[in-house]
Amino acid sequence: MLITEHALRNFTENIFLAMGCSAEHAKLAADVLLLADLRGIDSHGVARLTGYVRLWEKQRINATPDIKIVHQTPTTATVDGDAGLGLVVAPFAMQVAIDMADKYGSGWVSIRNSNHFGIAGYHALMAVEKDMIGIAMTNASPLVAPTFSNERLLGTNPMCYAFPAGKYPPLIVDMATSAAANGKLEIAQRSGKQVPEGWIQDENGNYTTDPHALKSGGSLLPLGSDREHGSHKGFGLSATVDILSAVLSGANYGPWVPPFVAFLEPPTDPVGKGIGHFLGAMRVDGFRPADEFKTHMDNWIQRFKSASTVDPSQKVIIPGEPELEAEIDRKKNGIPVVDVVVSDLNELAKKLGVSHLTGL
Amino acid sequence: MLITEHALRNFTENIFLAMGCSAEHAKLAADVLLLADLRGIDSHGVARLTGYVRLWEKQRINATPDIKIVHQTPTTATVDGDAGLGLVVAPFAMQVAIDMADKYGSGWVSIRNSNHFGIAGYHALMAVEKDMIGIAMTNASPLVAPTFSNERLLGTNPMCYAFPAGKYPPLIVDMATSAAANGKLEIAQRSGKQVPEGWIQDENGNYTTDPHALKSGGSLLPLGSDREHGSHKGFGLSATVDILSAVLSGANYGPWVPPFVAFLEPPTDPVGKGIGHFLGAMRVDGFRPADEFKTHMDNWIQRFKSASTVDPSQKVIIPGEPELEAEIDRKKNGIPVVDVVVSDLNELAKKLGVSHLTGL
Repeated sequence: MLITEHALRNFTENIFLAMGCSAEHAKLAADVLLLADLRGIDSHGVARLTGYVRLWEKQRINATPDIKIVHQTPTTATVDGDAGLGLVVAPFAMQVAIDMADKYGSGWVSIRNSNHFGIAGYHALMAVEKDMIGIAMTNASPLVAPTFSNERLLGTNPMCYAFPAGKYPPLIVDMATSAAANGKLEIAQRSGKQVPEGWIQDENGNYTTDPHALKSGGSLLPLGSDREHGSHKGFGLSATVDILSAVLSGANYGPWVPPFVAFLEPPTDPVGKGIGHFLGAMRVDGFRPADEFKTHMDNWIQRFKSASTVDPSQKVIIPGEPELEAEIDRKKNGIPVVDVVVSDLNELAKKLGVSHLTGL
Repeated sequence: MLITEHALRNFTENIFLAMGCSAEHAKLAADVLLLADLRGIDSHGVARLTGYVRLWEKQRINATPDIKIVHQTPTTATVDGDAGLGLVVAPFAMQVAIDMADKYGSGWVSIRNSNHFGIAGYHALMAVEKDMIGIAMTNASPLVAPTFSNERLLGTNPMCYAFPAGKYPPLIVDMATSAAANGKLEIAQRSGKQVPEGWIQDENGNYTTDPHALKSGGSLLPLGSDREHGSHKGFGLSATVDILSAVLSGANYGPWVPPFVAFLEPPTDPVGKGIGHFLGAMRVDGFRPADEFKTHMDNWIQRFKSASTVDPSQKVIIPGEPELEAEIDRKKNGIPVVDVVVSDLNELAKKLGVSHLTGL
């Protein structure tokens, strides 16, 4: 079904209002989800609404959190999200980072007691709008095995770096530190397709192309896939995200991160509170005049866009470019939402007494 | 040849003194190189001395640089290395970052007009010694092609994150953002061995296992190897390092980075000065009490060390662990230096009037 941005945004806001979120929080949370849907990252948009509601029903998400700074220096802070939606906790924390950067050049916030924060790019872009470099990371429920292990100890732990440019759109690196994001696996599971070797292993640590292997003790592999191709680097990046997000803030880390799905219970021996994020902002003009930086960013992008390619029909893709193209298209032509998600959302609407979704 | 740390350190210091470096700089530069040799990262230790001297002979390295801060806020700075050895420029800049972090919680320095800075871990560990998280990155001469391209546009651009722990040694993620570091390729070239598929491509963009393919227009592949396995992520990480190190500081970026070898001339149309680095320090106690952080770091490390493994004889390796084992061994038993490097160094010693190397 094709749905206008406006209709999908209203619907999403109404669901959050029905959960008891404040008008401000409902609007913000909807904005974070909508950006994912607009930018074509469908796994992180409204498709997750039902999941958030289920966690709220189980009282694992607090709809009226008292989000606050619990530790601070002029440019570092720890924020406690009070078990709120990551969709509102992370923007709060990013604003803290931006305010510190405004005053002192940079700002860094580690967040505990939060939940899934949507796409990392949303938070990083908040900094970019202020001519700052934005950094956003989060840990996540354990699905990935470290190199040599067959145990799920890490999340797909994404890291995002976003840079303002001049005539070009911002350059946004926003990536899971696993070989494949979980969303890609879910697509294969739904469509009954096999996945490439190097994405997952079975419970014994053998490569498998069965996307359902995760349900029988298998695990995702770190970026690099195997030791010979640098999976220890993907593991190292994922560890970095986990430590900055959770060991630093006092959230749960590694295998203690609570699952995103309500039907799985969190570990009974937590090592911290909720899940963790790490956000940062640095003023570009803390290093050189912003217009100089942007001119050179444009030159960088221009050079890479015009690189010689293996296949003349396949140009080099600047990080963030395909997402922007999707955003322009979907703002104009509507957001395609797959039928299973639409019926899921309409069932949710019925339960919460919210008007159902209507297509274009 | 097995050489004591003491003898190799003295020798290295003497070479730098013969280049005209100050006593302080010679000692510091030798310290950076020796740490690489001690930690088993032989490609970044004394094996590079001849290369530094050749660049100095060509006046591309300044032995008596006036290193200074050229732009600054309370927690951000740009340092101009005055074409000095990266081995002395980077520690200067990291000290600037640490001093800012001492006062304001964090400090971030982008560096231009520098040269090869040795192992990233040296600089990051300077922060760890002060109970800070250390970050170190550098761009490098272009050898890596972006996803879909057959053009060498990026260096192996390493990123390093180092975290203090309690009873365990610091956790140090120090990794090239290419599938394989150039040092590994050099080892294969010397020994006449083939390399695994996924490390390099030939000039047409086809996988090759010939380690010499780089000399005939081939290129290294980003971490992830191909699009299906996430090479766009390795490309994104490499781009991040390039932008933070060079677009932010005013150094050369992408294909404009000057080559590390003296027999190749730098591009005649530079977009900045020298090569660039990016260094950062964050006080752990800017987020939570340092002892709490370290206790949880120990718990993290303990949990991952005891993870279930595919092969019972191959435990999960904590990032930085193998390097520490090498350091303990080599401090005690001496540093093995391959014959070709020894004769190279002794020829250098003769030319510069320095005492030759003697083994154990």
